[in-house]
Amino acid sequence: MTTNKTKVKRIPRRGHYDPETIYAILDKEFVCNIGFIHEGYPVVIPTLYGRDGNHLYIHGSIASRMMKNLSEGIDLCLTVSRFNGLVLARSSFHHSMNYESVVLFGKAVEVTDREEKIHGFKMVSDHIIDGRWEEVRPIQDNELKATMLLKIPIEEASAKIRAEGVKDDKEDYELDIWAGIIPCKTSWESPIPDELMREGIAVPPSVGQFLQKKNGEEG
Amino acid sequence: MTTNKTKVKRIPRRGHYDPETIYAILDKEFVCNIGFIHEGYPVVIPTLYGRDGNHLYIHGSIASRMMKNLSEGIDLCLTVSRFNGLVLARSSFHHSMNYESVVLFGKAVEVTDREEKIHGFKMVSDHIIDGRWEEVRPIQDNELKATMLLKIPIEEASAKIRAEGVKDDKEDYELDIWAGIIPCKTSWESPIPDELMREGIAVPPSVGQFLQKKNGEEG
Repeated sequence: MTTNKTKVKRIPRRGHYDPETIYAILDKEFVCNIGFIHEGYPVVIPTLYGRDGNHLYIHGSIASRMMKNLSEGIDLCLTVSRFNGLVLARSSFHHSMNYESVVLFGKAVEVTDREEKIHGFKMVSDHIIDGRWEEVRPIQDNELKATMLLKIPIEEASAKIRAEGVKDDKEDYELDIWAGIIPCKTSWESPIPDELMREGIAVPPSVGQFLQKKNGEEG
Repeated sequence: MTTNKTKVKRIPRRGHYDPETIYAILDKEFVCNIGFIHEGYPVVIPTLYGRDGNHLYIHGSIASRMMKNLSEGIDLCLTVSRFNGLVLARSSFHHSMNYESVVLFGKAVEVTDREEKIHGFKMVSDHIIDGRWEEVRPIQDNELKATMLLKIPIEEASAKIRAEGVKDDKEDYELDIWAGIIPCKTSWESPIPDELMREGIAVPPSVGQFLQKKNGEEG
Protein backbone atom coordinates (compact mmCIF):
# COMPACT_ATOMS: atom_id res chain seq x y z
CA MET A 1 0.00 0.00 0.00
CA THR A 2 3.03 2.32 -0.28
CA THR A 3 3.22 4.94 -2.99
CA ASN A 4 4.89 8.33 -2.95
CA LYS A 5 1.57 9.77 -1.79
CA THR A 6 1.13 7.44 1.16
CA LYS A 7 4.74 7.22 2.32
CA VAL A 8 5.00 8.69 5.83
CA LYS A 9 7.54 11.47 5.48
CA ARG A 10 7.84 12.88 8.97
CA ILE A 11 9.23 10.38 11.53
CA PRO A 12 9.18 7.40 9.10
CA ARG A 13 9.42 4.81 11.91
CA ARG A 14 5.85 5.71 12.82
CA GLY A 15 4.61 4.62 9.38
CA HIS A 16 2.83 1.32 8.70
CA TYR A 17 1.66 -0.02 5.36
CA ASP A 18 0.35 -3.53 6.05
CA PRO A 19 -3.42 -4.08 5.65
CA GLU A 20 -3.76 -5.64 9.15
CA THR A 21 -2.54 -2.47 10.89
CA ILE A 22 -4.63 -0.24 8.64
CA TYR A 23 -7.78 -2.37 9.02
CA ALA A 24 -7.37 -2.51 12.82
CA ILE A 25 -7.42 1.28 13.10
CA LEU A 26 -10.31 1.61 10.63
CA ASP A 27 -12.28 -0.98 12.61
CA LYS A 28 -11.92 0.80 15.95
CA GLU A 29 -13.43 4.02 14.62
CA PHE A 30 -16.42 4.92 12.46
CA VAL A 31 -16.02 8.65 11.80
CA CYS A 32 -13.64 9.77 9.07
CA ASN A 33 -12.75 13.15 7.59
CA ILE A 34 -12.99 13.30 3.82
CA GLY A 35 -11.12 15.93 1.84
CA PHE A 36 -11.95 16.78 -1.76
CA ILE A 37 -11.57 19.70 -4.12
CA HIS A 38 -14.70 21.75 -4.85
CA GLU A 39 -14.54 24.71 -7.24
CA GLY A 40 -10.78 24.76 -6.78
CA TYR A 41 -10.62 24.88 -2.99
CA PRO A 42 -10.18 22.07 -0.46
CA VAL A 43 -13.16 20.96 1.64
CA VAL A 44 -13.00 18.59 4.63
CA ILE A 45 -16.19 17.03 6.00
CA PRO A 46 -16.56 14.49 8.82
CA THR A 47 -18.76 11.51 7.99
CA LEU A 48 -19.53 7.93 9.04
CA TYR A 49 -18.04 4.92 7.25
CA GLY A 50 -18.03 1.15 7.35
CA ARG A 51 -15.36 -1.29 6.21
CA ASP A 52 -16.17 -4.37 4.13
CA GLY A 53 -12.99 -6.27 3.32
CA ASN A 54 -10.76 -4.04 1.24
CA HIS A 55 -13.38 -1.34 0.69
CA LEU A 56 -14.95 1.40 2.72
CA TYR A 57 -18.55 2.43 2.25
CA ILE A 58 -19.92 5.87 3.02
CA HIS A 59 -23.51 7.01 2.60
CA GLY A 60 -25.38 10.27 2.56
CA SER A 61 -28.35 12.10 1.16
CA ILE A 62 -28.49 12.37 -2.63
CA ALA A 63 -28.80 16.13 -1.93
CA SER A 64 -25.41 16.23 -0.19
CA ARG A 65 -22.82 18.32 -1.98
CA MET A 66 -20.03 16.03 -0.85
CA MET A 67 -21.80 12.88 -2.06
CA LYS A 68 -22.55 14.46 -5.45
CA ASN A 69 -18.96 15.65 -5.81
CA LEU A 70 -17.42 12.34 -4.78
CA SER A 71 -19.76 10.29 -6.98
CA GLU A 72 -18.15 11.96 -9.99
CA GLY A 73 -14.96 10.03 -9.24
CA ILE A 74 -12.81 12.97 -8.16
CA ASP A 75 -9.71 12.50 -6.00
CA LEU A 76 -10.37 12.22 -2.29
CA CYS A 77 -8.31 11.87 0.86
CA LEU A 78 -9.94 10.04 3.75
CA THR A 79 -8.42 10.32 7.23
CA VAL A 80 -9.31 8.41 10.39
CA SER A 81 -7.63 9.28 13.65
CA ARG A 82 -7.83 7.97 17.17
CA PHE A 83 -6.33 9.96 19.97
CA ASN A 84 -4.96 7.89 22.88
CA GLY A 85 -3.26 10.34 25.20
CA LEU A 86 -1.21 13.44 25.83
CA VAL A 87 2.54 13.03 26.28
CA LEU A 88 3.95 15.59 28.73
CA ALA A 89 7.70 16.06 28.46
CA ARG A 90 10.09 18.22 30.44
CA SER A 91 10.26 20.77 27.61
CA SER A 92 7.39 22.16 25.55
CA PHE A 93 9.27 21.08 22.42
CA HIS A 94 9.01 17.37 23.28
CA HIS A 95 5.35 17.42 24.23
CA SER A 96 3.48 15.04 21.98
CA MET A 97 0.42 12.85 21.73
CA ASN A 98 -0.20 9.16 21.33
CA TYR A 99 -2.45 8.40 18.39
CA GLU A 100 -3.26 6.03 15.57
CA SER A 101 -4.26 7.42 12.19
CA VAL A 102 -4.93 6.25 8.66
CA VAL A 103 -4.63 8.42 5.56
CA LEU A 104 -6.15 6.97 2.41
CA PHE A 105 -6.09 8.35 -1.12
CA GLY A 106 -8.47 7.23 -3.83
CA LYS A 107 -11.69 7.80 -5.66
CA ALA A 108 -15.21 6.73 -4.80
CA VAL A 109 -17.56 4.76 -7.03
CA GLU A 110 -21.33 5.08 -6.66
CA VAL A 111 -23.13 1.81 -5.98
CA THR A 112 -26.41 1.69 -7.87
CA ASP A 113 -27.20 -2.04 -7.88
CA ARG A 114 -30.09 -2.56 -5.44
CA GLU A 115 -28.72 -5.67 -3.74
CA GLU A 116 -25.21 -4.28 -3.36
CA LYS A 117 -26.64 -1.02 -2.10
CA ILE A 118 -28.58 -2.81 0.65
CA HIS A 119 -25.45 -4.83 1.43
CA GLY A 120 -23.40 -1.64 1.68
CA PHE A 121 -25.85 0.07 4.02
CA LYS A 122 -25.83 -3.04 6.20
CA MET A 123 -22.02 -3.03 6.24
CA VAL A 124 -21.96 0.58 7.48
CA SER A 125 -24.58 -0.26 10.12
CA ASP A 126 -22.72 -3.43 11.20
CA HIS A 127 -19.43 -1.52 11.34
CA ILE A 128 -20.90 1.04 13.74
CA ILE A 129 -23.16 -1.21 15.81
CA ASP A 130 -23.17 -4.87 14.91
CA GLY A 131 -26.56 -6.57 14.97
CA ARG A 132 -28.60 -3.40 14.86
CA TRP A 133 -29.55 -3.88 11.20
CA GLU A 134 -31.59 -6.99 12.04
CA GLU A 135 -33.39 -5.27 14.94
CA VAL A 136 -34.87 -2.34 13.02
CA ARG A 137 -37.65 -1.88 10.52
CA PRO A 138 -36.36 -2.99 7.06
CA ILE A 139 -35.12 -0.35 4.64
CA GLN A 140 -37.73 0.92 2.17
CA ASP A 141 -37.50 1.75 -1.52
CA ASN A 142 -37.94 5.50 -0.96
CA GLU A 143 -35.07 5.42 1.55
CA LEU A 144 -32.85 3.53 -0.88
CA LYS A 145 -33.61 6.16 -3.52
CA ALA A 146 -32.96 9.09 -1.19
CA THR A 147 -29.57 7.81 -0.03
CA MET A 148 -26.40 7.53 -2.04
CA LEU A 149 -23.87 4.79 -1.33
CA LEU A 150 -20.23 5.23 -2.30
CA LYS A 151 -17.54 2.55 -2.29
CA ILE A 152 -13.90 3.50 -1.74
CA PRO A 153 -11.10 0.97 -2.27
CA ILE A 154 -8.43 0.70 0.44
CA GLU A 155 -5.48 0.67 -1.94
CA GLU A 156 -3.33 3.72 -1.39
CA ALA A 157 -3.29 3.95 2.39
CA SER A 158 -0.89 4.30 5.28
CA ALA A 159 -1.14 4.23 9.04
CA LYS A 160 0.82 6.35 11.48
CA ILE A 161 1.08 5.36 15.13
CA ARG A 162 2.71 6.90 18.16
CA ALA A 163 2.37 4.62 21.18
CA GLU A 164 5.31 5.26 23.45
CA GLY A 165 6.46 7.13 26.49
CA VAL A 166 8.12 10.49 27.02
CA LYS A 167 11.23 11.29 24.98
CA ASP A 168 13.29 14.15 26.39
CA ASP A 169 16.66 15.73 25.71
CA LYS A 170 19.31 13.89 27.69
CA GLU A 171 20.18 16.81 29.97
CA ASP A 172 16.52 17.52 30.78
CA TYR A 173 16.10 14.22 32.65
CA GLU A 174 17.95 15.86 35.54
CA LEU A 175 15.31 18.57 35.93
CA ASP A 176 12.73 18.52 38.72
CA ILE A 177 9.86 18.57 36.25
CA TRP A 178 7.01 16.08 36.21
CA ALA A 179 6.76 14.09 32.97
CA GLY A 180 4.36 11.38 31.92
CA ILE A 181 1.31 10.46 29.92
CA ILE A 182 -2.35 11.34 30.43
CA PRO A 183 -4.18 8.49 28.68
CA CYS A 184 -7.64 8.99 27.26
CA LYS A 185 -10.33 6.98 25.58
CA THR A 186 -13.88 7.32 24.38
CA SER A 187 -16.19 6.13 27.10
CA TRP A 188 -19.70 5.04 26.19
CA GLU A 189 -22.37 5.62 28.78
CA SER A 190 -25.71 4.04 29.68
CA PRO A 191 -28.20 4.25 26.83
CA ILE A 192 -30.99 6.83 27.21
CA PRO A 193 -34.30 5.37 25.96
CA ASP A 194 -36.48 7.48 23.66
CA GLU A 195 -39.34 8.94 25.74
CA LEU A 196 -41.80 8.12 23.00
CA MET A 197 -41.03 4.39 23.11
CA ARG A 198 -43.77 1.91 23.95
CA GLU A 199 -43.50 0.46 27.42
CA GLY A 200 -41.71 -2.79 28.17
CA ILE A 201 -39.12 -2.74 25.40
CA ALA A 202 -35.76 -3.91 26.71
CA VAL A 203 -32.37 -2.60 25.63
CA PRO A 204 -31.55 -4.86 22.65
CA PRO A 205 -28.54 -7.20 22.28
CA SER A 206 -26.83 -4.90 19.76
CA VAL A 207 -26.56 -2.13 22.35
CA GLY A 208 -25.36 -4.41 25.13
CA GLN A 209 -22.69 -5.97 22.92
CA PHE A 210 -21.65 -2.56 21.61
CA LEU A 211 -21.08 -1.20 25.12
CA GLN A 212 -19.18 -4.28 26.21
CA LYS A 213 -16.93 -4.21 23.14
CA LYS A 214 -16.27 -0.47 23.00
CA ASN A 215 -15.70 0.03 26.71
CA GLY A 216 -13.39 -2.99 26.81
CA GLU A 217 -11.11 -1.77 24.03
CA GLU A 218 -7.57 -0.78 24.76
CA GLY A 219 -6.24 2.50 23.39
CA MET B 1 -19.03 34.43 9.27
CA THR B 2 -21.42 33.29 6.52
CA THR B 3 -20.29 33.08 2.94
CA ASN B 4 -21.38 30.73 0.19
CA LYS B 5 -18.53 28.44 1.21
CA THR B 6 -19.46 28.23 4.87
CA LYS B 7 -23.26 28.15 4.55
CA VAL B 8 -24.51 24.82 5.91
CA LYS B 9 -26.37 23.29 3.00
CA ARG B 10 -27.69 19.99 4.37
CA ILE B 11 -30.20 20.45 7.21
CA PRO B 12 -29.69 24.24 7.51
CA ARG B 13 -31.24 24.41 11.01
CA ARG B 14 -28.12 22.65 12.30
CA GLY B 15 -25.93 25.53 11.06
CA HIS B 16 -24.50 28.22 13.36
CA TYR B 17 -22.41 31.22 12.37
CA ASP B 18 -21.90 33.25 15.56
CA PRO B 19 -18.35 33.42 16.95
CA GLU B 20 -19.47 32.28 20.44
CA THR B 21 -20.76 28.93 19.17
CA ILE B 22 -17.73 28.44 16.92
CA TYR B 23 -15.24 29.37 19.66
CA ALA B 24 -16.97 27.09 22.19
CA ILE B 25 -16.49 24.04 19.95
CA LEU B 26 -12.92 25.01 19.06
CA ASP B 27 -12.14 25.42 22.77
CA LYS B 28 -13.41 21.97 23.75
CA GLU B 29 -11.10 20.18 21.31
CA PHE B 30 -7.45 20.51 20.29
CA VAL B 31 -7.09 18.19 17.30
CA CYS B 32 -8.21 19.41 13.90
CA ASN B 33 -8.06 17.94 10.41
CA ILE B 34 -6.51 20.22 7.83
CA GLY B 35 -7.20 19.78 4.13
CA PHE B 36 -5.06 21.34 1.42
CA ILE B 37 -4.20 20.71 -2.20
CA HIS B 38 -0.77 19.23 -2.90
CA GLU B 39 0.29 18.54 -6.51
CA GLY B 40 -3.33 18.71 -7.55
CA TYR B 41 -4.78 16.21 -5.11
CA PRO B 42 -6.45 16.77 -1.73
CA VAL B 43 -4.57 15.85 1.46
CA VAL B 44 -6.08 15.73 4.97
CA ILE B 45 -3.78 15.59 8.01
CA PRO B 46 -4.78 15.64 11.69
CA THR B 47 -2.84 18.12 13.81
CA LEU B 48 -2.99 20.04 17.11
CA TYR B 49 -4.14 23.65 17.30
CA GLY B 50 -4.68 26.42 19.81
CA ARG B 51 -7.08 29.36 19.69
CA ASP B 52 -6.03 32.91 20.53
CA GLY B 53 -8.96 35.30 20.09
CA ASN B 54 -9.99 35.25 16.47
CA HIS B 55 -7.00 33.21 15.26
CA LEU B 56 -5.88 29.64 15.42
CA TYR B 57 -2.24 28.70 15.70
CA ILE B 58 -0.77 25.42 14.48
CA HIS B 59 2.83 24.35 14.72
CA GLY B 60 5.01 21.67 13.24
CA SER B 61 8.50 20.80 12.14
CA ILE B 62 9.99 23.03 9.45
CA ALA B 63 10.53 19.70 7.61
CA SER B 64 6.78 18.96 7.54
CA ARG B 65 5.30 18.88 4.04
CA MET B 66 2.01 20.25 5.34
CA MET B 67 3.66 23.15 7.16
CA LYS B 68 5.74 24.05 4.10
CA ASN B 69 2.70 23.88 1.83
CA LEU B 70 0.47 25.92 4.13
CA SER B 71 3.14 28.55 4.77
CA GLU B 72 2.92 29.45 1.08
CA GLY B 73 -0.58 30.84 1.74
CA ILE B 74 -2.54 28.23 -0.18
CA ASP B 75 -6.24 27.59 0.52
CA LEU B 76 -6.95 25.33 3.44
CA CYS B 77 -10.01 23.84 5.10
CA LEU B 78 -9.75 23.13 8.81
CA THR B 79 -12.32 20.89 10.48
CA VAL B 80 -12.87 20.17 14.16
CA SER B 81 -15.44 17.63 15.24
CA ARG B 82 -16.65 16.34 18.55
CA PHE B 83 -18.77 13.23 18.66
CA ASN B 84 -21.32 13.11 21.50
CA GLY B 85 -23.37 9.98 20.90
CA LEU B 86 -25.09 7.52 18.61
CA VAL B 87 -28.78 8.03 17.88
CA LEU B 88 -30.59 4.72 17.39
CA ALA B 89 -33.90 5.04 15.62
CA ARG B 90 -36.52 2.43 14.74
CA SER B 91 -35.35 2.36 11.11
CA SER B 92 -31.79 2.27 9.82
CA PHE B 93 -32.59 5.35 7.72
CA HIS B 94 -33.15 7.55 10.78
CA HIS B 95 -30.08 6.43 12.68
CA SER B 96 -27.87 9.42 13.33
CA MET B 97 -25.25 10.83 15.64
CA ASN B 98 -25.03 13.78 17.96
CA TYR B 99 -22.02 15.94 17.23
CA GLU B 100 -20.59 19.44 17.12
CA SER B 101 -18.31 20.43 14.28
CA VAL B 102 -16.61 23.48 12.85
CA VAL B 103 -15.53 23.90 9.24
CA LEU B 104 -13.20 26.81 8.57
CA PHE B 105 -11.84 28.06 5.25
CA GLY B 106 -8.84 30.32 4.95
CA LYS B 107 -5.13 30.66 4.47
CA ALA B 108 -2.31 30.44 6.98
CA VAL B 109 0.37 33.05 7.54
CA GLU B 110 3.77 32.07 8.91
CA VAL B 111 4.78 33.85 12.10
CA THR B 112 8.48 34.73 12.02
CA ASP B 113 8.71 37.43 14.69
CA ARG B 114 10.48 35.86 17.68
CA GLU B 115 8.19 37.30 20.38
CA GLU B 116 5.00 36.48 18.51
CA LYS B 117 6.30 33.00 17.79
CA ILE B 118 6.92 32.32 21.47
CA HIS B 119 3.47 33.77 22.22
CA GLY B 120 1.90 31.47 19.61
CA PHE B 121 3.60 28.34 20.98
CA LYS B 122 2.41 29.29 24.45
CA MET B 123 -1.15 29.77 23.13
CA VAL B 124 -1.15 26.25 21.63
CA SER B 125 0.25 24.83 24.87
CA ASP B 126 -2.27 26.77 27.01
CA HIS B 127 -5.12 25.68 24.74
CA ILE B 128 -4.26 22.02 25.23
CA ILE B 129 -3.18 22.06 28.86
CA ASP B 130 -3.34 25.39 30.62
CA GLY B 131 -0.45 26.19 32.95
CA ARG B 132 1.92 23.59 31.52
CA TRP B 133 4.00 26.21 29.68
CA GLU B 134 5.18 27.72 32.98
CA GLU B 135 6.08 24.31 34.44
CA VAL B 136 8.50 23.16 31.78
CA ARG B 137 12.03 24.05 30.75
CA PRO B 138 11.89 27.28 28.68
CA ILE B 139 11.93 27.03 24.88
CA GLN B 140 15.39 27.31 23.29
CA ASP B 141 16.57 29.09 20.18
CA ASN B 142 17.27 25.86 18.29
CA GLU B 143 13.72 24.67 19.05
CA LEU B 144 12.26 27.97 17.85
CA LYS B 145 14.23 27.58 14.61
CA ALA B 146 13.19 23.95 14.07
CA THR B 147 9.48 24.63 14.52
CA MET B 148 7.21 26.57 12.23
CA LEU B 149 4.25 28.51 13.60
CA LEU B 150 1.27 29.29 11.38
CA LYS B 151 -1.59 31.66 12.18
CA ILE B 152 -5.03 31.08 10.68
CA PRO B 153 -7.78 33.70 10.97
CA ILE B 154 -11.24 32.50 12.06
CA GLU B 155 -13.14 34.45 9.44
CA GLU B 156 -14.93 32.09 7.10
CA ALA B 157 -16.24 29.47 9.50
CA SER B 158 -19.44 27.69 10.39
CA ALA B 159 -20.53 25.28 13.09
CA LYS B 160 -22.91 22.37 12.71
CA ILE B 161 -24.56 20.81 15.74
CA ARG B 162 -26.92 17.90 16.25
CA ALA B 163 -27.97 17.65 19.89
CA GLU B 164 -31.39 16.09 19.99
CA GLY B 165 -33.27 12.86 20.46
CA VAL B 166 -34.54 10.21 18.06
CA LYS B 167 -36.62 11.34 15.07
CA ASP B 168 -38.62 8.55 13.47
CA ASP B 169 -41.29 8.24 10.82
CA LYS B 170 -44.72 8.72 12.44
CA GLU B 171 -45.92 5.16 11.81
CA ASP B 172 -42.70 3.63 13.19
CA TYR B 173 -43.42 4.84 16.73
CA GLU B 174 -45.94 1.98 16.99
CA LEU B 175 -43.24 -0.65 16.43
CA ASP B 176 -41.82 -2.76 19.26
CA ILE B 177 -38.28 -1.60 18.54
CA TRP B 178 -35.95 -0.08 21.12
CA ALA B 179 -34.87 3.46 20.28
CA GLY B 180 -32.64 5.88 22.13
CA ILE B 181 -29.25 7.46 22.45
CA ILE B 182 -25.90 5.99 23.49
CA PRO B 183 -23.97 9.02 24.80
CA CYS B 184 -20.21 9.07 24.69
CA LYS B 185 -17.40 11.32 25.78
CA THR B 186 -13.63 11.37 25.97
CA SER B 187 -12.59 10.21 29.39
CA TRP B 188 -9.17 11.15 30.72
CA GLU B 189 -7.52 8.68 33.04
CA SER B 190 -4.94 8.84 35.83
CA PRO B 191 -1.61 10.19 34.62
CA ILE B 192 1.18 7.63 34.18
CA PRO B 193 4.50 9.09 35.42
CA ASP B 194 7.59 8.68 33.25
CA GLU B 195 9.72 5.87 34.73
CA LEU B 196 12.85 7.93 34.25
CA MET B 197 11.61 10.74 36.45
CA ARG B 198 13.52 11.71 39.57
CA GLU B 199 11.85 10.60 42.78
CA GLY B 200 9.51 12.79 44.76
CA ILE B 201 8.08 14.92 41.93
CA ALA B 202 4.36 15.39 42.42
CA VAL B 203 1.75 15.55 39.66
CA PRO B 204 1.73 19.28 38.80
CA PRO B 205 -1.25 21.70 39.02
CA SER B 206 -1.64 21.81 35.22
CA VAL B 207 -2.43 18.09 35.10
CA GLY B 208 -4.83 18.16 38.04
CA GLN B 209 -6.73 21.12 36.61
CA PHE B 210 -6.77 19.55 33.17
CA LEU B 211 -8.36 16.34 34.46
CA GLN B 212 -10.91 18.21 36.54
CA LYS B 213 -11.92 20.45 33.64
CA LYS B 214 -11.99 17.82 30.89
CA ASN B 215 -13.74 15.13 32.89
CA GLY B 216 -16.32 17.64 34.13
CA GLU B 217 -17.30 18.80 30.65
CA GLU B 218 -20.72 18.09 29.26
CA GLY B 219 -21.04 16.67 25.76
